[in-house]
Amino acid sequence: MDDATHATLPAHLDVDALRKHLDGRWRHVREDVREKAGSTVLPDPDAGSIEDYRAKITEALRELGATGTPAIGFSKEHGGGGDVGGSAVAFEMLGYSDLSLMVKAGVQWGLFGGAVQALGTQRHHEQYLPRIMSGELLGCFAMTESGRGSDVQSLGTTLTYDAETQQIVVHTPTHDARKDYIGGAARDATHAVVFGQLITGAPGEQAQGRGVHAVLVRLRDDDGNPLPGITISDCGPKAGLNGVDNGRIVFDHVAVPREALLDRYGQVAEDGAYSTLIASETRRFFTMLGALVRGRISVAGSAGSAAKKALAIAIRHGDKRTQFTRPGSNDEMIVLDYLAHQRRLLPSLAKTYALHFAQGELVATMHDVQSAAEVDDARQRELESRAAGIKAVATWHATDTIQTCREACGGAGYMAENQLPQLKADSDVFTTFEGDNTVLLQLVAKGLLTEYRDHFGDLDTLGTVRFVADQFVGTVIERTAARGLLSRLARVGAGKNGAVLDRAWQVNLFEDRERHVVDAAARRLRRAAGASPNRAFDLFNAVQPHLLEAARVHVERVVLEAFIAGIDTCEDDASRRLLERLCDLYVLSEIEQHRGWFLEHGRLTPTQSKAVTNAVDELCAQLRPFAVRLVDAFGIPPEWLTAPIARR
Amino acid sequence: MDDATHATLPAHLDVDALRKHLDGRWRHVREDVREKAGSTVLPDPDAGSIEDYRAKITEALRELGATGTPAIGFSKEHGGGGDVGGSAVAFEMLGYSDLSLMVKAGVQWGLFGGAVQALGTQRHHEQYLPRIMSGELLGCFAMTESGRGSDVQSLGTTLTYDAETQQIVVHTPTHDARKDYIGGAARDATHAVVFGQLITGAPGEQAQGRGVHAVLVRLRDDDGNPLPGITISDCGPKAGLNGVDNGRIVFDHVAVPREALLDRYGQVAEDGAYSTLIASETRRFFTMLGALVRGRISVAGSAGSAAKKALAIAIRHGDKRTQFTRPGSNDEMIVLDYLAHQRRLLPSLAKTYALHFAQGELVATMHDVQSAAEVDDARQRELESRAAGIKAVATWHATDTIQTCREACGGAGYMAENQLPQLKADSDVFTTFEGDNTVLLQLVAKGLLTEYRDHFGDLDTLGTVRFVADQFVGTVIERTAARGLLSRLARVGAGKNGAVLDRAWQVNLFEDRERHVVDAAARRLRRAAGASPNRAFDLFNAVQPHLLEAARVHVERVVLEAFIAGIDTCEDDASRRLLERLCDLYVLSEIEQHRGWFLEHGRLTPTQSKAVTNAVDELCAQLRPFAVRLVDAFGIPPEWLTAPIARR
Repeated sequence: MDDATHATLPAHLDVDALRKHLDGRWRHVREDVREKAGSTVLPDPDAGSIEDYRAKITEALRELGATGTPAIGFSKEHGGGGDVGGSAVAFEMLGYSDLSLMVKAGVQWGLFGGAVQALGTQRHHEQYLPRIMSGELLGCFAMTESGRGSDVQSLGTTLTYDAETQQIVVHTPTHDARKDYIGGAARDATHAVVFGQLITGAPGEQAQGRGVHAVLVRLRDDDGNPLPGITISDCGPKAGLNGVDNGRIVFDHVAVPREALLDRYGQVAEDGAYSTLIASETRRFFTMLGALVRGRISVAGSAGSAAKKALAIAIRHGDKRTQFTRPGSNDEMIVLDYLAHQRRLLPSLAKTYALHFAQGELVATMHDVQSAAEVDDARQRELESRAAGIKAVATWHATDTIQTCREACGGAGYMAENQLPQLKADSDVFTTFEGDNTVLLQLVAKGLLTEYRDHFGDLDTLGTVRFVADQFVGTVIERTAARGLLSRLARVGAGKNGAVLDRAWQVNLFEDRERHVVDAAARRLRRAAGASPNRAFDLFNAVQPHLLEAARVHVERVVLEAFIAGIDTCEDDASRRLLERLCDLYVLSEIEQHRGWFLEHGRLTPTQSKAVTNAVDELCAQLRPFAVRLVDAFGIPPEWLTAPIARR
Repeated sequence: MDDATHATLPAHLDVDALRKHLDGRWRHVREDVREKAGSTVLPDPDAGSIEDYRAKITEALRELGATGTPAIGFSKEHGGGGDVGGSAVAFEMLGYSDLSLMVKAGVQWGLFGGAVQALGTQRHHEQYLPRIMSGELLGCFAMTESGRGSDVQSLGTTLTYDAETQQIVVHTPTHDARKDYIGGAARDATHAVVFGQLITGAPGEQAQGRGVHAVLVRLRDDDGNPLPGITISDCGPKAGLNGVDNGRIVFDHVAVPREALLDRYGQVAEDGAYSTLIASETRRFFTMLGALVRGRISVAGSAGSAAKKALAIAIRHGDKRTQFTRPGSNDEMIVLDYLAHQRRLLPSLAKTYALHFAQGELVATMHDVQSAAEVDDARQRELESRAAGIKAVATWHATDTIQTCREACGGAGYMAENQLPQLKADSDVFTTFEGDNTVLLQLVAKGLLTEYRDHFGDLDTLGTVRFVADQFVGTVIERTAARGLLSRLARVGAGKNGAVLDRAWQVNLFEDRERHVVDAAARRLRRAAGASPNRAFDLFNAVQPHLLEAARVHVERVVLEAFIAGIDTCEDDASRRLLERLCDLYVLSEIEQHRGWFLEHGRLTPTQSKAVTNAVDELCAQLRPFAVRLVDAFGIPPEWLTAPIARR
């Protein structure tokens, strides 16, 4: 790398200016959380029993409700703030505090409250939302069952309408249909949104399954005892998040009034007649799930916060910790001055920045889609796909990053007081809850292959295979917010700073890879044309890892474009120049890690591939002096960054 | 893959026959642990306070001492079994129980007892070993200091001999010199082996530093109170291993008798005169450390057990758990029938098998080296290097595997009752304790570059750089136990079953990679010839990631050869044929994961690279029906495999 490149780095970085830029559109929400952070004291999960910890988290949850912040995501007509994006950003910020608190808040206001708002109608909103927003009424979200994790459409719980009593009977017919891992169920929730198969019929019509619906069920009486027919047990200790009271619920023919049905997408008349505006059961199901996209987006945001906090701890520690002396002198070496140490932390930092901008774009899209006067089906489907993809990539990145940070801090990283153990244990489940990452990436791939033909669950595996076999013509790279920007880039960037630092070259490489991987997967699936279902499935199964890779490279391209767009709007010159280098490090680390593919497919020559590795080394060395300021710019509330090794 | 290959898989596998083969040379030790397993009930770390858990683990430790098993590794003349290898295998088996118990036992009998035996002399052995073996006297190993993790040679603790009183004064001069993370110190240990800089001089001679030595210090009185001048504090809760009482120790001029010096490698006369048979301070230091190699080998073994237990849980669960239905039918799909699921678990299983054989070879080598009548310096150095390398690779593999298993079990994998959370939390520190993995790989690389010229710490960084610059002529691939076997292989194997399944081709690929990466690193270091120390260090730093890679590929080659040797001695035909396929899966997964390097260096064509990926897919499908039996063959005591999801 020549001196000209070096010269593009700023001499000084104003951390406040960079933080303002990172704070973005909902800066006021972030500042508000920072101001109030001191009043949320993080409980020590090791200080007492799990019950003590749960009690402290519930208390913090109620205090949080009293601040009014959780209400910002609810509709204005019921006393909320009507700010969907702000609500997601508030959850993201809560990811810097205790993740049990974040998850409890996510269950209460995101999943439970969100389901009442999105799936319910006027009567539910009026009756429940004010008390849900304030935290007076605590609820849980009873979707997952013991026998089924990801296959929600096949839930076993039944919701059977009885026209005589005008009640819906909630029942757990088998052990597998038991509601499991339900956050809030073991201790606190008095109410639950329960998902199950609605069974009803008009007079003279055979009662039949209408697919998955949700009812609002009261679980406990005023003394906290389960109501008759309801058996609740405790899932017991978990790897982390022990401030959350996960439980199991079994319903034995529990009758609730007809009005308990959250009936925005499907209604039952008094006589049992079923009506809906969405005729396809599968489509109805995915429309309902789509309305709950905020939960997934919030998890991605919190995962980002967890990764940022871990990096702040490890980088500040690495900037002070010494190990061995510099040969030929008595100067002790600072560990972050070792290239191997930089290589562990700085590419993770670069990707964390990349995902920060991608998350910002995702939240803004959700806000705009959900605040729009008209429903835009295509944008909604794209949002769901993007949320699924970014959730998967962001949570895996968090798990990897926190592990790396733990190891980079050695024994100190293993001590509870240094916060990394709890971050690691708490965030670990993010990769498999709110949608298992592998299943999510499969959905993303399905969307790519079918051009988001419909709600992406709308086609089952066989349908997807056949659709692709019959109709797939070729991948369309749909550009993100960076669209205009990228065409400009292609004109001015070429050849500058040597090929591997040329942004246009980088973008083309990512786009080209996406197109190739998706096209190749489609070609393989096309062999299933006319095959028997069995054979078609076997072919699908054989292509499965390829499909996951297609989804992954798609997400990486989207993330890159979000990073580029995020740099473009940066008004602080020094920040912008640093972000450009971080973006290089993100892109080139990704290429280096996956250079096998690029070489295999003739997209990189061996010489270029080695140049990529050298450039990553150089970028690490260049960014190293800014490392501490780059984590300071996240603006993590200092009250929540208590690790002694992270002290300035 | 053609049908001929398919045909080489056995129709039936006798799990007992395979287990016997895996049990190997110390089968009697393994069987003994299995028989007694029922008497060690695993405590529930979440059932009470950390103090409760510690108390239960200490109780289990004393019970273990009473069984006599821990004595097998001590010398016969003091009542031990004289079976060094058996002792390491017993620790490995203990890795299936509670890892806090394993670490407590490792501290007591491996580190503390091992140091007294290896660094002490007759008087220490007679006075202490019997009570150490029985667990009557509990001790700790006070090496690590707050300010220094890996750089043990620079310890700050001083051991100053005072000829007038004939005492050694143990002192902590700075905050950084505080002993830290010392297992056993916070609660149980009455004694400690304390490492520090010995300072002494003969009459008329200036007292001077003699480098790191160890003294045996009594820490607590009979009531458990710290003795005068000794301040002990508790490190508090950790990510895992909370049954181990890690503590910090500060010494304020604590005087111990001259005889407390563990003086096998360096002696102090009454008048303060220092004598030793190893003149070089650095060499003496590494000889002392080398005597303690068993600890590192035991950690590698326990990491292997932790990975095996995690795989047993995840594979048994994946063999029962259903998710989604098979298209075109109502049959539910078993998750392990999905290729993506196989791809997560089976390559890990294959590498776990590979490391099992490598560990077996390592233990046998240690046993033979340490039981030999004559000290063989070259073999000892090779053993140390191999132990360092396998410890690094095995512990990273365990961390990765346990994480993968956790995710593969979804929410169930997050529940404490399913054991994966504790396995993950407990084993996480393995990558950074008993030698930080990054530092260990650097030592391995140093050994490769200097042809084990001396004890591998003998050359500091600058010395290594200069040695390489001056003398390095080319890598010698020193063959392992598989030597004779491999030359046979090269003759008969070529071309059989298609190139990527040809064992000779695979071995050549690994050897060739090792040679190339080591040579290239040496070439880069050679540029430092004649450079200033500063410049030489910068060059070294730039080559650091390359050196780590050199060490890693060296270890992978050693592991492969151990696997091949392990197959060769297998007398059960069906087992042998399965092991052959597992070995293919290990090799090809490794090649696939690192195909970037092979393509970059023209060692694989793009076509071959794609063939490797296809072969991994095929091998996963072929091995899938055997997956449960392959984990059953580990012979994990069922009393210690309590996860409900792992039930048969």
